Amino acid sequence: MTTLPPAEVGMTLDEVDTPALLIDLDAFEGNLKALADTLAGTSVKLRPHGKAHKCPIIGHKQMALGAVGLCCQKVSEAEAMIFGGLPDIYITNEIIGARKLARLAPLAHQARIATCVDNPISIAPLSEAAQAAGVEIRVLVDVDVGQHRCGVEPGDAAVPLAQAIDKAKGLSFGGLQAYHGTSQHFRTHKERGAAIKGACEAVEKTIGALKKAGLDCAEVSGGGTGTYPFEVASGLYTELQAGSYIFMDSDYGLNKAEDGSPFGDFRQSLFVLATVISHPATDRMITDAGTKALSVDAGMPTPRELSGINYKMAGDEHGRLELDGTNTELKVGEKIQVVPSHCDTTVALYEWFVGLRGGRVESVWPIPGHAATQ
Amino acid sequence: MTTLPPAEVGMTLDEVDTPALLIDLDAFEGNLKALADTLAGTSVKLRPHGKAHKCPIIGHKQMALGAVGLCCQKVSEAEAMIFGGLPDIYITNEIIGARKLARLAPLAHQARIATCVDNPISIAPLSEAAQAAGVEIRVLVDVDVGQHRCGVEPGDAAVPLAQAIDKAKGLSFGGLQAYHGTSQHFRTHKERGAAIKGACEAVEKTIGALKKAGLDCAEVSGGGTGTYPFEVASGLYTELQAGSYIFMDSDYGLNKAEDGSPFGDFRQSLFVLATVISHPATDRMITDAGTKALSVDAGMPTPRELSGINYKMAGDEHGRLELDGTNTELKVGEKIQVVPSHCDTTVALYEWFVGLRGGRVESVWPIPGHAATQ
Repeated sequence: MTTLPPAEVGMTLDEVDTPALLIDLDAFEGNLKALADTLAGTSVKLRPHGKAHKCPIIGHKQMALGAVGLCCQKVSEAEAMIFGGLPDIYITNEIIGARKLARLAPLAHQARIATCVDNPISIAPLSEAAQAAGVEIRVLVDVDVGQHRCGVEPGDAAVPLAQAIDKAKGLSFGGLQAYHGTSQHFRTHKERGAAIKGACEAVEKTIGALKKAGLDCAEVSGGGTGTYPFEVASGLYTELQAGSYIFMDSDYGLNKAEDGSPFGDFRQSLFVLATVISHPATDRMITDAGTKALSVDAGMPTPRELSGINYKMAGDEHGRLELDGTNTELKVGEKIQVVPSHCDTTVALYEWFVGLRGGRVESVWPIPGHAATQ
Repeated sequence: MTTLPPAEVGMTLDEVDTPALLIDLDAFEGNLKALADTLAGTSVKLRPHGKAHKCPIIGHKQMALGAVGLCCQKVSEAEAMIFGGLPDIYITNEIIGARKLARLAPLAHQARIATCVDNPISIAPLSEAAQAAGVEIRVLVDVDVGQHRCGVEPGDAAVPLAQAIDKAKGLSFGGLQAYHGTSQHFRTHKERGAAIKGACEAVEKTIGALKKAGLDCAEVSGGGTGTYPFEVASGLYTELQAGSYIFMDSDYGLNKAEDGSPFGDFRQSLFVLATVISHPATDRMITDAGTKALSVDAGMPTPRELSGINYKMAGDEHGRLELDGTNTELKVGEKIQVVPSHCDTTVALYEWFVGLRGGRVESVWPIPGHAATQ
């Protein structure tokens, strides 16, 4: 970490420097437990996605509650997790490029490693890297189950890929990557259900094609915070990759349950603490948290427990509180909490989590994977 | 830095891991020199904004070409610069909060320090912090010259603030902060000229009010990459705060000069290198650079020297190349360069700059201020 932490253990919330990334530890631990409890007694294992937190101690907390390992999205993210002692990492992404493969393969000396492919030309370099390092890497076939990002077409297209992995030295065929990312944010239960029904049909078709070729799928890995009840009920998925459930965000807050009520078993546990630094006009206050402290790829953040205030951006280092006149309590120097619109991309902006319980800082955790772009 | 660098000195571009933040060193050095040359012989000093690069060695290069010091936007950013040996830092922002002030004031033992205020209640805590550290801090009055973010109204409102600074122990009145941020991105020469004409009227009115009260403005600090010719010609501004001129971005690329031609004296020197990791359909390729590697607060990035391709986001770790069918050369595993839509917020996502000259990596510079949110 190259910046000093914004807080020390024992501080009150008011003493914490800003902008700071706060975890409400009670809500966070409740979220960890809620998903672990939901999966207990099912055939679906939890492999939570580390891209949401990029923080080894959180990974260890997930493992302690029964996770079989973690997902990562990048080799450098996997390094951060493995250097923090995590024993089993699945990189849910195509790993392309000599330097990346030369970093990936030796990690298998320190942890169980898996990755995925969607193109036959990726298999030889992966096999060579594994052999050069003297390791074995599990490789899943990435199937496009409806997101239309990476992935082969469901069905027969997966067969030659799985066969090539199966034959390649240093690699073993691990099953299917079957994640439908966009469906996580479909607003209605019906839309999410329909998307995962389609994903399951794609998975079933692909498993059938592989079976015909004599290949078993050890794992079908996918699912996320928005759709996991469908994957768990499917009888097809063996691993759940949910990540955001530990924190939640205002975008997930827009999802609805079947009866139209707010969606989900999880509470908002992640907040950004900001300070009001200027009050130059009656309808406007300025904070110290702009686009370098709150991501905007999923829209604007939402003030927590403050009425009559909209949060807008006023630059890279400034937020703008638009006041409708009903909130007259707030003053320059006061701190406010804001719900990020997107937890993953906001976490990536910070080097430290500040854990709070009962109004006091209980923990200050480094986020070694925060800038793990490679 | 907590991630390994994506490159080593001497590598070819093709060997660099991705996503990586590239500097075309010839273009970058040309930009450094172009602005230094423009200001040479004028009465305006260059105090470039460090928020654009967050990297001490770049600050030293700016000093070597005549800059009088650097601007920063945050105390933690100032720490990164001062720990890297920069001798003179002006934080162009309201510094509010006990922990922030306790970090700010002792920096004045190591460098010349200034900051700004727009509210009388901020002056006593700043004075107390300066006295506790046994230092003197220059304080400018932040005037709203048209951006309507922070800042007091132009004219008489600045007088009691300047007087209070002048009287406060440990502080000295340093002049006016007069930055019009939004005008940097007004597209036409006429709009930018009109905005800075308004800013100059606001500055003149404020200088007049202060003079009447017996107070001199040592500095009038402001201006940016989009408007600097107007501030330089004004006869009012003494310091120019341009930051983006060293890198440029596709948003600045939309500004027009007086004759409607592309604006400015500066060349694009900052690029993100990404790898094509998937080609699942004829109209779509996927890269490894998503919203955690390319900021989107100013829109989508632009492929460099690639026709028939639009760059869209396909998630936090994936970019989507939309192909119109005319570009059939690109293959999985190939690397492409992308022009960020906004240089400042993209730089903040990375820990390393990779400097290129003649197709080879010449330098790999750490960015210690990349996560300097506080």
